[in-house]
Amino acid sequence: MSATESVLTLELVLQAHQRIRDRINRTPVMTSHTLDELAGASLFFKCENFQKGGAFKARGATNAVFSLSPAQARNGVATHSSGNHGAALARAARLREIPAFVVMPANAARVKRESVERYGGRVVPCEPTLQAREQTLERVIADTGACLIHPYNDLRVMAGQGTTAIELIETVPDLDVIVCPVGGGGLLSGVAVAAKARNPAIRVVGAEPAGADDAARSLKAGRIVPSIDPRTMADGLRTSLGEKTFAEIQRHVDDIVTVSEQSIVDAMRRIWEVMKIVIEPSSAVAYAALAEAKVDAAGKKLGLILTGGNIDLDHLPWNRRAV
Amino acid sequence: MSATESVLTLELVLQAHQRIRDRINRTPVMTSHTLDELAGASLFFKCENFQKGGAFKARGATNAVFSLSPAQARNGVATHSSGNHGAALARAARLREIPAFVVMPANAARVKRESVERYGGRVVPCEPTLQAREQTLERVIADTGACLIHPYNDLRVMAGQGTTAIELIETVPDLDVIVCPVGGGGLLSGVAVAAKARNPAIRVVGAEPAGADDAARSLKAGRIVPSIDPRTMADGLRTSLGEKTFAEIQRHVDDIVTVSEQSIVDAMRRIWEVMKIVIEPSSAVAYAALAEAKVDAAGKKLGLILTGGNIDLDHLPWNRRAV
Repeated sequence: MSATESVLTLELVLQAHQRIRDRINRTPVMTSHTLDELAGASLFFKCENFQKGGAFKARGATNAVFSLSPAQARNGVATHSSGNHGAALARAARLREIPAFVVMPANAARVKRESVERYGGRVVPCEPTLQAREQTLERVIADTGACLIHPYNDLRVMAGQGTTAIELIETVPDLDVIVCPVGGGGLLSGVAVAAKARNPAIRVVGAEPAGADDAARSLKAGRIVPSIDPRTMADGLRTSLGEKTFAEIQRHVDDIVTVSEQSIVDAMRRIWEVMKIVIEPSSAVAYAALAEAKVDAAGKKLGLILTGGNIDLDHLPWNRRAV
Repeated sequence: MSATESVLTLELVLQAHQRIRDRINRTPVMTSHTLDELAGASLFFKCENFQKGGAFKARGATNAVFSLSPAQARNGVATHSSGNHGAALARAARLREIPAFVVMPANAARVKRESVERYGGRVVPCEPTLQAREQTLERVIADTGACLIHPYNDLRVMAGQGTTAIELIETVPDLDVIVCPVGGGGLLSGVAVAAKARNPAIRVVGAEPAGADDAARSLKAGRIVPSIDPRTMADGLRTSLGEKTFAEIQRHVDDIVTVSEQSIVDAMRRIWEVMKIVIEPSSAVAYAALAEAKVDAAGKKLGLILTGGNIDLDHLPWNRRAV
């Protein structure tokens, strides 16, 4: 991939899939008779909670790390991350036997911090603001010479995340709709590019918390409108779009819908109870969008992307009052 | 199956599989690189938490209900159950379009009671003692003419549960060991008969809570030694062996091991965190036995049966202090 390329293509996503497929899990697509009955639709859940490191982020990080030239890779890689991208980058770096430096907000979930460390990544703590993250990351890169791998605003990362849709559509070729959570937009942009190239008739809908609705506002305004003070338990979705992800989302995404915090809790709990799988709040927004009737589902075949399963079991949202 | 048969055979298990296979899920066998590294062994988890109704009980109940003659089935079926068998029986009865009466202790987990009702079963509450359950069940049968389907001490049920091992061994033919939770013994007896008939070299180990260790004591004593006052969070394993299950366990099971309550919590939490699946405490005892080094695992291929995933998310064992 040349550094001058600025448009994501199906070809880049397919190249990413070739590059990473033996280094990640091909995650299952699960179904639930009970949830189908409740929705009056056929739901296909792409279970990235079963991905290496417990989140889809393994795809983009692995593609980025293995796209680097030996010279680029020499001093390792660095990023800032609320957690899942950091762990994914640490894992990919370990596979390539280079160091990974991960700037993380001090209030990140314990399990996410531990995931980075389990893969041999070096956690660099910072204040929980975008500005602090970026300044700390700049300093780390200046000190170490590590190569920046942005969590989402990077075509190599976006192409890697898009492989989720390649696999989902291979498993269920005749989907009508894909509903995909959107935070920084790496996943949604990759999924939209891949899905629309495979089948232009597939409707691609992004879903985000109402308390971090920068994607909906940006798409409406026609320019990036960042979330200044995002308020949501979906910690993976607090980030705002980047210029590269926004460009692809403008081109390829049909709609962005928002969901309430209560819907996220209810959706997450229902998926745990009915499907018997552990997902994090960010994963639940796609199903929450259905439950809020924000997506036209009746009689359709929908692909829902469950983005990850890394959650602190001591702080579950339905036990908040007890904490 | 004739009512006079009293020995469980591979043939009965295979007949059960033919009878139920289109009415249940073929559950996945999951693996975890992380748990393999921790165990120094290759672990294959048979995920009955993904079974219809969220537990392996669908197998035995469905086999029993569809083994009934039209005359036997006419007035429906009845049972007592801590929950999973009751829901499974309700579901099987609904498939056959006959009523199901389920006697349940008043302190049964909410999700288990709701599962019975969701499948159209009629819950009959009783005191949480074995005596109260049996007396209430006798009354229900006298009143309705329903056919008793015992939760475990019934060859049709045992044969159905044994289909778990048929599928596990089809997926992983060269297992060295199967570790299986034991409560009333329906699953363990069925699994042991099927596994030993398929491959006599497979070691079959039962695992139970130390606070409900009637199977270990019974095997040692050579006669059934029931648990008088079982104390364990693994609510599916509080029951004691029946004469039919004990006979098969004596013939075919190599060892019964016990685990502490703390090991059950730790095992359950680790499986949730690492494998991203929801399992109930009873499911965790097989892995807990490995974690306590009660099973010789090093370098071996082990099948672990995860029995179910029905748990009240408001009362997780690691949040006990907060309840």
